[in-house]
Amino acid sequence: MSLHNPDVRGFASDNYSGIHPEVLAAIAAANGGHQVAYGEDAYTEHLQEVFVRHFGDGVEAYPVFNGTGANVVGLQSMLPRWGAVVTATSAHINTDEAGAPERVAGIKLLTVPTPDGKLTPELIDREAWGWGDEHRAQPLVVSITQSTELGTLYTVEEIRAITAHAHGLGMRVHMDGARISNAAAALGVGLRTFTRDAGVDVLSFGGTKNGAMLGEAVVILDPAASTGLKYLRKLDMQLASKMRFVSAQLIALLEGDLWLRNATHSNAMAQRLRAGVEAGIADGSITDVVLSRPTQANGVFATLPPGVADRLRESFRFYDWDVATGEVRWMCSFDTTEADVDALVAAVAQETSRT
Amino acid sequence: MSLHNPDVRGFASDNYSGIHPEVLAAIAAANGGHQVAYGEDAYTEHLQEVFVRHFGDGVEAYPVFNGTGANVVGLQSMLPRWGAVVTATSAHINTDEAGAPERVAGIKLLTVPTPDGKLTPELIDREAWGWGDEHRAQPLVVSITQSTELGTLYTVEEIRAITAHAHGLGMRVHMDGARISNAAAALGVGLRTFTRDAGVDVLSFGGTKNGAMLGEAVVILDPAASTGLKYLRKLDMQLASKMRFVSAQLIALLEGDLWLRNATHSNAMAQRLRAGVEAGIADGSITDVVLSRPTQANGVFATLPPGVADRLRESFRFYDWDVATGEVRWMCSFDTTEADVDALVAAVAQETSRT
Amino acid sequence: MSLHNPDVRGFASDNYSGIHPEVLAAIAAANGGHQVAYGEDAYTEHLQEVFVRHFGDGVEAYPVFNGTGANVVGLQSMLPRWGAVVTATSAHINTDEAGAPERVAGIKLLTVPTPDGKLTPELIDREAWGWGDEHRAQPLVVSITQSTELGTLYTVEEIRAITAHAHGLGMRVHMDGARISNAAAALGVGLRTFTRDAGVDVLSFGGTKNGAMLGEAVVILDPAASTGLKYLRKLDMQLASKMRFVSAQLIALLEGDLWLRNATHSNAMAQRLRAGVEAGIADGSITDVVLSRPTQANGVFATLPPGVADRLRESFRFYDWDVATGEVRWMCSFDTTEADVDALVAAVAQETSRT
Amino acid sequence: MSLHNPDVRGFASDNYSGIHPEVLAAIAAANGGHQVAYGEDAYTEHLQEVFVRHFGDGVEAYPVFNGTGANVVGLQSMLPRWGAVVTATSAHINTDEAGAPERVAGIKLLTVPTPDGKLTPELIDREAWGWGDEHRAQPLVVSITQSTELGTLYTVEEIRAITAHAHGLGMRVHMDGARISNAAAALGVGLRTFTRDAGVDVLSFGGTKNGAMLGEAVVILDPAASTGLKYLRKLDMQLASKMRFVSAQLIALLEGDLWLRNATHSNAMAQRLRAGVEAGIADGSITDVVLSRPTQANGVFATLPPGVADRLRESFRFYDWDVATGEVRWMCSFDTTEADVDALVAAVAQETSRT
Repeated sequence: MSLHNPDVRGFASDNYSGIHPEVLAAIAAANGGHQVAYGEDAYTEHLQEVFVRHFGDGVEAYPVFNGTGANVVGLQSMLPRWGAVVTATSAHINTDEAGAPERVAGIKLLTVPTPDGKLTPELIDREAWGWGDEHRAQPLVVSITQSTELGTLYTVEEIRAITAHAHGLGMRVHMDGARISNAAAALGVGLRTFTRDAGVDVLSFGGTKNGAMLGEAVVILDPAASTGLKYLRKLDMQLASKMRFVSAQLIALLEGDLWLRNATHSNAMAQRLRAGVEAGIADGSITDVVLSRPTQANGVFATLPPGVADRLRESFRFYDWDVATGEVRWMCSFDTTEADVDALVAAVAQETSRT
Repeated sequence: MSLHNPDVRGFASDNYSGIHPEVLAAIAAANGGHQVAYGEDAYTEHLQEVFVRHFGDGVEAYPVFNGTGANVVGLQSMLPRWGAVVTATSAHINTDEAGAPERVAGIKLLTVPTPDGKLTPELIDREAWGWGDEHRAQPLVVSITQSTELGTLYTVEEIRAITAHAHGLGMRVHMDGARISNAAAALGVGLRTFTRDAGVDVLSFGGTKNGAMLGEAVVILDPAASTGLKYLRKLDMQLASKMRFVSAQLIALLEGDLWLRNATHSNAMAQRLRAGVEAGIADGSITDVVLSRPTQANGVFATLPPGVADRLRESFRFYDWDVATGEVRWMCSFDTTEADVDALVAAVAQETSRT
Repeated sequence: MSLHNPDVRGFASDNYSGIHPEVLAAIAAANGGHQVAYGEDAYTEHLQEVFVRHFGDGVEAYPVFNGTGANVVGLQSMLPRWGAVVTATSAHINTDEAGAPERVAGIKLLTVPTPDGKLTPELIDREAWGWGDEHRAQPLVVSITQSTELGTLYTVEEIRAITAHAHGLGMRVHMDGARISNAAAALGVGLRTFTRDAGVDVLSFGGTKNGAMLGEAVVILDPAASTGLKYLRKLDMQLASKMRFVSAQLIALLEGDLWLRNATHSNAMAQRLRAGVEAGIADGSITDVVLSRPTQANGVFATLPPGVADRLRESFRFYDWDVATGEVRWMCSFDTTEADVDALVAAVAQETSRT
Repeated sequence: MSLHNPDVRGFASDNYSGIHPEVLAAIAAANGGHQVAYGEDAYTEHLQEVFVRHFGDGVEAYPVFNGTGANVVGLQSMLPRWGAVVTATSAHINTDEAGAPERVAGIKLLTVPTPDGKLTPELIDREAWGWGDEHRAQPLVVSITQSTELGTLYTVEEIRAITAHAHGLGMRVHMDGARISNAAAALGVGLRTFTRDAGVDVLSFGGTKNGAMLGEAVVILDPAASTGLKYLRKLDMQLASKMRFVSAQLIALLEGDLWLRNATHSNAMAQRLRAGVEAGIADGSITDVVLSRPTQANGVFATLPPGVADRLRESFRFYDWDVATGEVRWMCSFDTTEADVDALVAAVAQETSRT
C-alpha cells in the first residue's frame, strides 16, 4: 500500500530518498528460509569478502543500523573510558547526534572551529595536548568527516597529513564516511586510497545516504586500533537480529559499482545545480544569490535574499543551514534528476528576480 | 544475488526466519520519491492511526530498530536517573541485552527468580521496597514479558493483578512484547485487552520475530508514564532516517490481520510439535524426553538424553537452554511448516530410540 | 562549636562514630604550608610506602573519598565496557550504592543469592559463563566483601579457593574491604595474607568505618589487573584536591597499629555483646531472642520479638535488618565501650522479659 | 607526624593551601560520640540554617566532597537526560573535570569561546537554539563561573542580564562558585546579591579553596530548578557517611565571617602582587612582563619572557597558563602573606632584569 506520491523529490537530504531498486532486489534475494541471526549468516560472511576487496586483507566490517550508531560504536571501540575525540565543531557527531557520543559512550568531544569543516594538523593541535594529565579528557582519537558536513572534501594528501600527525602524537584516526562514496567519486580514486592507505584506522561506512534502505558498517581498517567491537555493537543496541538484510544491502552497493554510480550521479547533480545557479548569476537571471561554499560532493550551499527560501520551499523541500545569514543547503541524491535540478534553478531565477 | 538455500529452516529462533512476503511488498510500496526523514513521513503518520485502532485513542508509537532498543528507550523514558526496574531474572533485558539497560540507560535491574518467567505481586514485593532511601536504587517500574522467554503466558487477570499492585505502589508497568502477537493469538483476545486495558503503561511492540525484516515500536499506552521519548530514541541511536520503511513494515503487520495470522501459525506449529512429542512419548516411540515447560506460545522446551541434542542439530538448528539439565528450546516461526515439525518429531523419535 | 552530645553512642553503624584522636592529630600535623594538590604531596607519597609495608612491593594505593567510590573506581579499572561482576546478592555494591556501579561505571552486576553473604566457587559458577557471547554481559570480575555485610568472614582458604577458581576462568578478583581491618583482626593474620597472598587483585581498603574522618583507598595488588586508575579516579569525581589530609588519615591508621587496635576493639565489643545476649538467653533473663548469624567481625545480628526493637531504640540507635523476620543489626565501632555493650544487653533483657 | 615544611608556600593554587585553624577547630569540635551518618546529623541540620541566613528562606544545601562533584550533581539535577549546558570554553567543567559531566552525568556541553571567561546573552545565543529538534542536545542550562577561571568577575548586573536572558529562553542558570567568596569580597556585596537575588538557580558553593580541608555544597536557590538531588548525590558517589565533618567545615566558614576574611585576604594579596609588578614595570625594575588579564579576584595572570617562569619556579611553585604565549597564573590563598608576595615581586624583578 503506497501512501505517498513517488514522483515528488526535493533537495532536503540524501536520506529523504528511498531504496535503490538494486538494493531492494538484494533484500528480496536474501529472503526465504532461515539464516543464523545476529551476523552468522551467509550475507554477512560474504560482506567481509566484499569489504576486503575494497579495503584489503585484514579489515573487518560490522554492519549497524545507522550513522550515529556507526560513529559511536566505532569511536567507543577506539577509546578507553577516559578518552576524548578531537573533531571539527561542525562534525555530525558534535552537532547532530543529540549528544549520543557523550551520553551513550561517555566520550568527550574536543571541538575545533574550522572555516570549511576540515581539520588540519594545526587545528588538531589546538586540542591535542595534555596527555598524562588526569584533569584533562585524554585526546586519543581524531575524527574527520569525508565528505564533510559542509560539502567539502579532504584530498588524499590532506588526510595523509592528518593521520601522520595524529599517529605521531599517539592518536588514532576515525573517519565518518556517511557520504564516503560521494568522496570517492569526487576524488576519482578507490575507497581504499583515502582511507586505509592514507592511514585512517576506523571507518564509519555509509550506505543509507547512497541508496540503501538502512545500513552502515563500522570498518576496522587497523585491528590494533579497535577493541571489543563485537560486544560494543550489541550493548550499544546496534546489533540486527536479521542481519542478512542489512548485509545484503551493503553487498548490493559494493559488490559491483552501484556505490559509485549512485555517488557519481548525486555529485553530478550537485555540479549541475551549481553550474545552473552560476550561469544564472552570470547572465543576471539570478540575483543576490551567493554560492557560499565549494561544491565538492553532493551538497550545494547558497545564501538567498530574505523570503526567497520560504517561497522556494513551496515547491522544493530543503533546509536552512544558517538562518542568520540566509544560507541554505541543497542536497542531491541518487535519484535526483536533471529535470529536478533544472526546475530548482529556474525557480531560484524566478524568485530572485522577483525580490 | 541469493547466497543461501531458502528451503532450509530450523527451530533456533523466530528471528532466523526472513521477511513475510506481504511485509516485503509493503517495503517496496513505500519506495520511490522523497519522504521526510526521521519520522515525518506518510507511513509513520499512518502508523499512528493503525496503533490507535489497536490500542485506542491517545497512544503514541515510536518505531525503533530492534527489541533491545525498544526496551531500553521505553524504560528510560519511564524512569528518573535514580530509578530501578523490578523484573524476572529470566527477562530478556536481564539476560540477553549485554547490559544495555545498565550501560546505555543507567538503569538498575532488581531481579527476582521465578519458576516460569512470570512475576506476581508477591514476587514483585521482594524487590519493591525502599522508596525514599537514597542508598537504594528506587524501584519505579515493573517490567514483564508477554509471552515470556520461557514460552509461558500471563493471563489477562494476572497482568491486571500486577499492574494494580504496581500502580498501588506508585510504580509503572512496562511490557516487553517482542512476541506480543503470539500472546494475543494464544489468549484469543485483542492486543489492547492484555496491555492498555489491563493497565500496562508502556509497551515494546515486536515486529521482527513475527515476520518483519526489522522493526519494533515503543508504544506509550499512558502518556503520563513516559517523558522525552522523542529525544531518548535519538540519543539512544534508535532513530531511523528512512523511517518510512520501518513504519511500512509495522503497518503491513497491523493494518490487516497479518500479525495475527503469523502468530497463530507459529503458535499452532509449536502445539503440533508438542503434540507430536507427547504422542511419541505416549506410544513409546520417543523415550527419555520430558517436555519441561508449558507450551503457551510459539516455543517448546524439552529435556533430552545426553547426546541427542547434538545429533538432532545435524539436521535442525536449535539452542540449548540449560546445558546442565539437557534442556533445549525449539522455536516455531511464521514460516515453520507442518512438514518441518513432523520431521523434527520423527528425528526425535529416531534419536531417542537409539539412545 | 559543638552541636551534639559527645557522650551518646549507639549500635547503628561504625560510620556513626567520629574520628579517632590519633587520626585527628594526624590531620592537624599535615596542616600548614602548601603541598601540591591532587596527590603529589609528601603524605600521599609516604602512604605508598606504608601500603607497600603491609601488602608488599609493587602495590599502588589511590586514596578516594568513600567506599562506594573505591568500589566503583576499582571495579571500573578492572573491566572493559562490556564487563560484568559476579557478586553476592547481599553485596554492598548491589544493595547500598544506589546503582552507582551501573550508572556511573556501566557495570552489570551478576548477582548470586548466598546463605551467609559469602561466595564460593560453586556459587560463582552460577553466573560465570557465557564468555564470547556478545548477548551476555561478560563476567570478568568476582567481587567479595571481607568481612561481609552479614557480619561473616571468609577464611584465608576460602578466599584462595575463590581466587584460584576465578583466575582459572580468566576472571579477576576484587575485594570490598570497607571492614578489612575487622577481618584481619578476627583472622589474626596480616592484611596481606588474605588479600594479595590469597590472590586478590584489587582491594577497596576502608578507613572511614575504622576511625577515619573519611578516606578509603583503591589498592592495586596486581598491576596487571587494573588500567587507568589515575584517570578513572578523576573522572569518577573521587580525586581530592587537598589529598594530603586523606592520606594522612590512612597513614595514621596504618603506620602503626591503630588500624588493628581499633578493629580488635570493635570486634571484641561485638563478641562481648553476643556473649552477653547468649548468657541472658542461657539464664533466662533474655527470652525470645535469637542470634541469627555468626558474629565473626564487629556486627551482631539478632531477631527480636515484635515491639522490642522500637522500645530499645528509645535508648540505642540501631537498624532493622529484615523487618519481615524482626532481625536487627547491632554494629560496634572503635569507640564502643564495655559499658555501652552492657547497657544494651541489660536493655534487651529488660525489654524481652517484658514481652 | 608532619612530613612537610609548613613554612613553604607558593602561588600554584588556592588548593595547595591547608586548613584554616578555625576550620580545623570546627572539625575537632564536631568529633566525639555518634551522629547519624549520611547527613541526618546536627551539623548538617544547622548548616541549612546557616545557608538560609546567607541566601534566604527555602534554599537547600547538599554538602559534597569536591567541586567537580558539586558541579556534576547540581547540573544533573537540573537536566533531563537529553539536556545540554551552554558554558564558556574556558569553564572548569569543560577543561578540568576529565569529562565527568559527559561521562558520569551524560551531559553535553555546548561551549562558547569568550575573551575573558565570561558569558553574555549574546554569547549564550550562539549555542542556545534548537529546542524541540531531537538531533540537537537540548540547551536547557547556562553555567557561569564566579569568579571565573581567568580571574575575572561578573558584575551583579551582568549576572542579572544572563539569568533574565536564560529564563526568557526557558533555560536555568547554574553558577560554579568554587571561588564564590572571592567574588563576594571583590564585589563588596553579600553572597545572595549576585546569586539568588540575581536569578541564579543552582549554585556550587566552594569551601575547599577558601580554607576548608574539603567540602563544597550544591545549593538549590530555586527548588523548581532541581530534581532528585538527594538521589543524585548518592549515585554520583558524593555522599559522605560522616557528613558532620564536612558540614562543620562549611559552618566554620559561613557562621561568622571567616569566609569573607579569607577571601578578602587572598584578593588583597593578589592586588598587592599586581601592584608590585605594576610598580616594577613603572620604575623599570621589571621588564618585558605584561599583566595579561584584569585582577578581579585572587589570581594574577602575566606573560613572562622566555626562561623566567622556570627560574622563578626554583623558589615559587606556580603554573603555566599558556605555554605558547608564556602566560602564567599566580594564585593567592587565605594563607598567602605579604612577605610571600613581596618576595615573588622581588624575584620577578631579579629574573626579568637578568634577561
